[in-house]
Amino acid sequence: MNKDKTYIGIDIGGTNTVIGVMDPKGKLLREKTFPTLSKEPFHLFMTKLDKEFTDIFNHSEIYPSGIGVGMPGANFKTGIVEAPENFNWEKINLPQVISKKYNLPVRIMNDADAAAQGELCFGNAQDLKNFIHITLGTGVGSSTIVDRKIITGHHGMAGELGHTKVYPGNRMCSCGKRGCLETYVSANGIRRTVFELLSTEQTDSVLRDFSYMQLSPKIVTDLVLKGDAIAIKTYQYTGKILGEKLANVIGLINPEAIVFSGGLVAAGRFLFDPMKISIEENLLQVHKNTVEIRLSDPNTNYAVLGAATLLM
Amino acid sequence: MNKDKTYIGIDIGGTNTVIGVMDPKGKLLREKTFPTLSKEPFHLFMTKLDKEFTDIFNHSEIYPSGIGVGMPGANFKTGIVEAPENFNWEKINLPQVISKKYNLPVRIMNDADAAAQGELCFGNAQDLKNFIHITLGTGVGSSTIVDRKIITGHHGMAGELGHTKVYPGNRMCSCGKRGCLETYVSANGIRRTVFELLSTEQTDSVLRDFSYMQLSPKIVTDLVLKGDAIAIKTYQYTGKILGEKLANVIGLINPEAIVFSGGLVAAGRFLFDPMKISIEENLLQVHKNTVEIRLSDPNTNYAVLGAATLLM
Repeated sequence: MNKDKTYIGIDIGGTNTVIGVMDPKGKLLREKTFPTLSKEPFHLFMTKLDKEFTDIFNHSEIYPSGIGVGMPGANFKTGIVEAPENFNWEKINLPQVISKKYNLPVRIMNDADAAAQGELCFGNAQDLKNFIHITLGTGVGSSTIVDRKIITGHHGMAGELGHTKVYPGNRMCSCGKRGCLETYVSANGIRRTVFELLSTEQTDSVLRDFSYMQLSPKIVTDLVLKGDAIAIKTYQYTGKILGEKLANVIGLINPEAIVFSGGLVAAGRFLFDPMKISIEENLLQVHKNTVEIRLSDPNTNYAVLGAATLLM
Repeated sequence: MNKDKTYIGIDIGGTNTVIGVMDPKGKLLREKTFPTLSKEPFHLFMTKLDKEFTDIFNHSEIYPSGIGVGMPGANFKTGIVEAPENFNWEKINLPQVISKKYNLPVRIMNDADAAAQGELCFGNAQDLKNFIHITLGTGVGSSTIVDRKIITGHHGMAGELGHTKVYPGNRMCSCGKRGCLETYVSANGIRRTVFELLSTEQTDSVLRDFSYMQLSPKIVTDLVLKGDAIAIKTYQYTGKILGEKLANVIGLINPEAIVFSGGLVAAGRFLFDPMKISIEENLLQVHKNTVEIRLSDPNTNYAVLGAATLLM
């Protein structure tokens, strides 16, 4: 193994993009975050990315062996990105575009799988064989890992959980359907639940002082820690719905653990305690108490690490 | 390969048990069906099984190399059978008991996986890499096949679909929960739906002449072919619910096909046309029209064949 060999991982999110340089042991040597500008044309992203690349390549100790990209809608098998609703990018062959520019091998996978791959290689799942990885952030990402391999699906499009129905669920989803899990269990879902509860309950809450646009899950989490009743109830409700859905997945796949990452993980026991109760309530007897719940280390970007392993 | 080598497959169902002798090419040389007596103590089953074995071994051309068993609640990894609600058998190590008696290697797997394995080796799934196998009979059996291998789960208990929730669903299930898929999509579920429709609709129907105990899915299927409105509506409703559930599985696993077997397959397009519509309605755009629907050949017992392959 070349001592100086490095791998570049790029995690393209709806809001920010993180680019990282990883050594063969999974250590991030450099990391940089910049706005994705997902609502602007794709070429503006490429201009921004190029600026960051130039910055990295100018450091003489960096000899990248390849580039791995994790991004929503990325197809591992075809290399095509069909960007989701919150991106205004056309359908692109991302590996081709980037590879042409830098003369390096490029591979892509969807962002949820990249995070799962990072956990598998360097994170909280290094000792696991069969697990589910769930990212709770802007949306719900999910990956199924069987015998330490991610199930990518026959057409490279496995792992959809966020846009499966939740009941009783009538919330309009960005995908055009109603009642998707993502309209409840996500940053925006949290906000919607707060507003639903503010409408149905009469409990006092600091949350009554925020407009819809002002409210973020972080505010709700901060208020949970201060004992705000609506904030607590919001995460209880979110946990209950997530637990019902995960019970179905556990029955089907029978994993040894579920590993969680993403912004909502910060809610800790306020989200995951009600979720665990809901999971167990909805499992068949034979599946009860068979699944361990693990939370990811919020200080490491496993999606960048996972993407970077694509060329190892 | 020994020309005379054969393999015994046993499919133990809640009502009947089928024992078959298979040659290495998957041809059934002999097949025998007898009542399982699942409500009686296990030793009565063993007495009955022994009688059938004696019968088979007395045929001089039969040299079995081993015995494979498919049965609900059988754990491929541990060899333990925790018989489901409709069996009154204690928890047993079935391979140990049978192996001791006949001095032959014995392996077990759950009945749904045995059927999937049979389809994979000799049936309608020989050309498939990634598929879901669904058995629609007394209950709902399911198996997930990725890269031609059945996902058995970390503890050998994967493939549960029948006891996941359906909405709006309030029917009491034999497992103790309410609203399980199996209370709608199964022989008994069909019966319950007929009775629900007879209570909510005013349509004329020959089905009004049957008592609950008299009614079987076969009667409903026969009436569907004669254009009975309640019978048609029953299968439409069943297909709709099944389709909603399968859409979730398709999103998660992204298979190339779903292969169906079991008694309800006889309903043909009356069940599967509404199911297909319901699947497509509930899929994300990227998953639409990606899945082929295949029905098993009802004249071959793939569960027996699949079980028999366990020792090949």
